[in-house]
Amino acid sequence: MKNVKEYIANHKDRFLTELIEILKIPSISADSAFSQDVLDTADAVKLALENAGCDIVEIHETDGYPIVYGEKIIDENLPTILVYGHYDVQPPDPMDLWNSPPFEPVIKKTELHPEGAIFARGACDDKGQMYMHVKALEFMVKTDQLPCNVKFMIEGEEEVGSNNLATYVSENKEKLKNDVILISDTGMIANDIPSITTGLRGLSYVEVEVTGPNRDLHSGLYGGAVANPINILAKMIASLHDENNHITIPGFYDKVQELSDAERAEMAKAPFSLEAYQKSLDIESVYGEKGYTTNERNSIRPTLDVNGIWGGYIGEGAKTVIASKAYAKISMRLVPHQDWREITELFKNHFESIAPKGVRVKVKPHHGGQGYVTPIDTDGYQAASKAYETTFGKKPIPQRSGGSIPIVSLFEKELDSKTILMGFGLDSDAIHSPNEHFGVWNYLKGIETIPYFYEYFTEKSLGRG
Amino acid sequence: MKNVKEYIANHKDRFLTELIEILKIPSISADSAFSQDVLDTADAVKLALENAGCDIVEIHETDGYPIVYGEKIIDENLPTILVYGHYDVQPPDPMDLWNSPPFEPVIKKTELHPEGAIFARGACDDKGQMYMHVKALEFMVKTDQLPCNVKFMIEGEEEVGSNNLATYVSENKEKLKNDVILISDTGMIANDIPSITTGLRGLSYVEVEVTGPNRDLHSGLYGGAVANPINILAKMIASLHDENNHITIPGFYDKVQELSDAERAEMAKAPFSLEAYQKSLDIESVYGEKGYTTNERNSIRPTLDVNGIWGGYIGEGAKTVIASKAYAKISMRLVPHQDWREITELFKNHFESIAPKGVRVKVKPHHGGQGYVTPIDTDGYQAASKAYETTFGKKPIPQRSGGSIPIVSLFEKELDSKTILMGFGLDSDAIHSPNEHFGVWNYLKGIETIPYFYEYFTEKSLGRG
Repeated sequence: MKNVKEYIANHKDRFLTELIEILKIPSISADSAFSQDVLDTADAVKLALENAGCDIVEIHETDGYPIVYGEKIIDENLPTILVYGHYDVQPPDPMDLWNSPPFEPVIKKTELHPEGAIFARGACDDKGQMYMHVKALEFMVKTDQLPCNVKFMIEGEEEVGSNNLATYVSENKEKLKNDVILISDTGMIANDIPSITTGLRGLSYVEVEVTGPNRDLHSGLYGGAVANPINILAKMIASLHDENNHITIPGFYDKVQELSDAERAEMAKAPFSLEAYQKSLDIESVYGEKGYTTNERNSIRPTLDVNGIWGGYIGEGAKTVIASKAYAKISMRLVPHQDWREITELFKNHFESIAPKGVRVKVKPHHGGQGYVTPIDTDGYQAASKAYETTFGKKPIPQRSGGSIPIVSLFEKELDSKTILMGFGLDSDAIHSPNEHFGVWNYLKGIETIPYFYEYFTEKSLGRG
Repeated sequence: MKNVKEYIANHKDRFLTELIEILKIPSISADSAFSQDVLDTADAVKLALENAGCDIVEIHETDGYPIVYGEKIIDENLPTILVYGHYDVQPPDPMDLWNSPPFEPVIKKTELHPEGAIFARGACDDKGQMYMHVKALEFMVKTDQLPCNVKFMIEGEEEVGSNNLATYVSENKEKLKNDVILISDTGMIANDIPSITTGLRGLSYVEVEVTGPNRDLHSGLYGGAVANPINILAKMIASLHDENNHITIPGFYDKVQELSDAERAEMAKAPFSLEAYQKSLDIESVYGEKGYTTNERNSIRPTLDVNGIWGGYIGEGAKTVIASKAYAKISMRLVPHQDWREITELFKNHFESIAPKGVRVKVKPHHGGQGYVTPIDTDGYQAASKAYETTFGKKPIPQRSGGSIPIVSLFEKELDSKTILMGFGLDSDAIHSPNEHFGVWNYLKGIETIPYFYEYFTEKSLGRG
């Protein structure tokens, strides 16, 4: 890839301005109040793909938010890369913890990002990482170095479970036909320790509702005499973990694959400082399943976390009330071989079974997805590894991530091709949190590295690698 | 009391209209957004007392909301009754459960109130019951039948802990000097089963905050590896009750006075249908401390209830986040001899002590008050009992209530006089809940009964009873 560094240096400011414009649109797919913004973002992505050099760009309607499809086919005999990304973002709350408004991007220096980072919701997850691919294409097209065919599939419902993507994919297998799927929606260990994600956890997300009396009650007149839905919900949630922080749902671990000591020893080689980890989170101690290290707990082990809880009086001051209802949003991260539908069913049955008399329980499944593990001996992985080595000067470490991209296992099944997860963000970029950011260096390094993947993957596919 | 029924019949419509006007003002003391409304309500009460015939009415400023003081002294040698009530109300939420707006009073018939009930926040607690005393005074003054002196002390902070009343009372002992204190802020068993509250529970209200990581985290990248404040809070709350629903806070029961079997047998005589109770709340079963009946659980036993809980993402849809903080509002109802400050301290120490490493816990005491038990052999109780008997045609049942009027025990200590709790509401009037209401029959029956208490108490005090 000739002059990639020069091209990026010459267009750096524009690359940043263009991304910032897209980050300004609050494309929060979880909140219907922002539906027009989500649609506007799809249009912006369409325009960006056209400008970057795609020959065909289409907005495909779904039952939810549209999918932006783009392609540049230069030769049927050359391999085809399918780039997947998403243009929707997580809700920004709690708003009061943001140091600058989530949809008014600003560039500020941080300890880990001395060259500055873009602070905005979606800066890293996934608008910033998705846009790297758009700019990488622009470079290859404008400098006549595009070595193969490329297709883009950018959706707007990843943060709410990609409910309509599955249907879209299965209905468009021919259109989406490819030799490898490329996704940048994960992270790497550090700017000087590149890594490639080789595993993802699955997900089951549910919402529970506990109903006690048919109305809110005065806690003095009824306190102690009726089941308090909040106390009961707390008791039920607490019972989902035992004293070793194992999950108590019957059958939950049945299909969990235990790693061999050798595999665990290999994992343990990844550089990690427990002290630095605790310091960065300002916690006195980590906490988790007995018998596993921190890096095992958040990657190769399934988990259950309450993501939100509410009930009763949560306003200013005091209200002596026993609420009629209490609610919680609960998600379980799953590991390969755990089926998310089966786990959701196990949760539902168990949670309903532990409800005491005097309350009624509803479990409403939200969404979910399967875990995924990719082999490292494929052309795709090898090409990605060589691309990082070229631009970072270091061979990347294969790493299992604790996150989920529910759609990945579906791609493999429907499109019969492997997915390569080339992430350029850092865990400390606060995705899904206030003050999400993405390093300017990382953004540009991604744009620099992606073209090499195209080059190496094409060579390997044509047997010249 | 001559012609009391006639007077009420002739002025019934005005009595209702006047009350409705006061109910229209949203005097929510817990929410500072309504401070002007609270102040306006104080003015309305002042005017009402003047119109009813008080010779002096003053608004006394405090560090919080003002106290309305009024008096009519007809003869220093006659006994003096001090009437206490409050003009502030509970917050109305959850708003969506109200069938009519909480501050737009409407009169509707119900099964228990065939003559209609006034639906509005504060209709029963305590604007309606307070206003009965104003109208009873009007009757006695206008018909020249006031048999003794009367003082009114109507505050605006009862629903937030009466924080400034204590200071006011101790600084105005001479002004508030009285022979008996009369309060209508409790209920009775049923319209055909009059009862007088002889005991109240104390209260300790606290707010807790559990902090884990210094920011919200992505539940995929960190899930399972750090303490989740919501899961931890649930665990801590669950641990506050054991398998028999006894409270586990060390020392919590030390000063709880167990009732004798005779006393419990006496209590058990009060008419009560468990089936009707469960039906009215639409619950399959009651729930509470092992070894005690429903009526014991909500009156002679201390309790711990979560009144509100919140943390993480509680908006529409899904957010895979581990919150940095989780919160709960927790209140404990206490029985006589439990000191609320001591219990608050026991709770704080225990709750902090059970926090696992990896989270930090803050316990913020809100307010509280002591429990109270009144003897039934006093002039005050006997006069009240006779008054009910006169107007209801039945001797009222002495009853311990589960509610709290924190200020009552303070009155006894500071003013050296007994408090008589003449309540005319029903437990089913939904105080502190959506659709609070107060029976028109009960409102008028209270106005009819109160003058007889004045008459009988004066007779007994002068040795003519």
